[in-house]
Amino acid sequence: MSEIAADPTHPRYQSLLMRHRLEEAEKKGMLAGSALIAHGRGEAFDYLIGEQTLPSALQATRQALAYLVEAKNPVISLNGNAVALAGKEILRLAHHLQCPVEINIFYRTPERMMALLSHLNEIKAQEQIDVEILGAEPNARIPGLEGPRANCSREGIFDSDVILVPLEDGDRCEALVAMGKTVLVIDLNPLSRTAQMASVTIVDELTRVIGNMNRILDSSEQITPLSTYNNQAIVQQALDHISSFFSSQI
Amino acid sequence: MSEIAADPTHPRYQSLLMRHRLEEAEKKGMLAGSALIAHGRGEAFDYLIGEQTLPSALQATRQALAYLVEAKNPVISLNGNAVALAGKEILRLAHHLQCPVEINIFYRTPERMMALLSHLNEIKAQEQIDVEILGAEPNARIPGLEGPRANCSREGIFDSDVILVPLEDGDRCEALVAMGKTVLVIDLNPLSRTAQMASVTIVDELTRVIGNMNRILDSSEQITPLSTYNNQAIVQQALDHISSFFSSQI
Repeated sequence: MSEIAADPTHPRYQSLLMRHRLEEAEKKGMLAGSALIAHGRGEAFDYLIGEQTLPSALQATRQALAYLVEAKNPVISLNGNAVALAGKEILRLAHHLQCPVEINIFYRTPERMMALLSHLNEIKAQEQIDVEILGAEPNARIPGLEGPRANCSREGIFDSDVILVPLEDGDRCEALVAMGKTVLVIDLNPLSRTAQMASVTIVDELTRVIGNMNRILDSSEQITPLSTYNNQAIVQQALDHISSFFSSQI
Repeated sequence: MSEIAADPTHPRYQSLLMRHRLEEAEKKGMLAGSALIAHGRGEAFDYLIGEQTLPSALQATRQALAYLVEAKNPVISLNGNAVALAGKEILRLAHHLQCPVEINIFYRTPERMMALLSHLNEIKAQEQIDVEILGAEPNARIPGLEGPRANCSREGIFDSDVILVPLEDGDRCEALVAMGKTVLVIDLNPLSRTAQMASVTIVDELTRVIGNMNRILDSSEQITPLSTYNNQAIVQQALDHISSFFSSQI
């Protein structure tokens, strides 16, 4: 990895960099057993969209960012893979937006929570970023979910009006929508239940999405949510792209 | 996992069973770092074909099996994931065919080779299957490949006329075809270089394919290679299936 990491012009640089970040995260105990398999599924879908940000995904990214900017209580929910792949970039985004992040993992163990918290705190110290990190001491529950994955923080996810949930599972996405929140998801599979249920669905790779959001915020361009935004049509454009990708082969 | 493993009617039984086998294999040191990510990519493509054996895949499976039955020196090449996911079923197939298997892994270390060999030898003892297991002491090289992944056994892969290579990488598939062998591959991605290069491409999940082969052999049905078999058309049918799957959504 080291020689490839030194050469960002290598055609597989991004993909190998993401794998490298996951390997490091695994060594630190940040990931659940299913994390690498989930990443592989994402890789397959990213390959199908050409490892690029589709125009429809950029529209969704702008709409999501506009909701975050206008929100009263925005929050970014983080799982192990999101922290591993884009921890630094997400903390930069949260700092821009002046919103907290909340670690909210499906397979919750004290050891994993500790590993994720200390990784984020390291980034905060290194980058001198001031962001509140919630999730260590949940004091509320997401209605309609069973077990530890329902646990959340009242001052974070529970009371939020707009929530960005990268790499979310379908049940929790549905439960958050049922709470009346504007739910913004990043999901490379346009057919997933998460992609179908969300208020805004960004069918794109996590680090590209967060990079795009930070670039838009850095540019100080004005953005507001479009009343004409149609999430179903946006998701359909990703489906059409993949469908034509397959039918154009051979 | 244990309660799900006990209930084969669970809709996700097969998928969870495969993950369980990979977890066990990882504990034994049988897998490379990229094994779980590769499995995740496979899961995504399996989902796109509906987690089923397409009619075109069954045609390819019959053709591949017919080549194996008629071969002078057939061999089954095995990597870590193939051993982990279907070690027992593949040894049964090799026993049926009276052919050797050869462990031929991309990231070769003495520890991984030892873990894979001892896992296969355990199965042989438990199931009382008599199959020659090659790969421990390579004595030939696949021309056109660099590094340890070119190593192979003269009495196995090197001298084979027909080779079944589940889950192969594109470079090695190409090198085996260039040696003039009939190369039979199992690959869930119909767009992969392996899928495009092989003599027969089975776009299906490994354990389903081996299960189908063993069932056909158990049935003592006569099978011979069809002169009308068109691998490009078979792969195209998988592509068409996925394309229509996407275009029929929403």
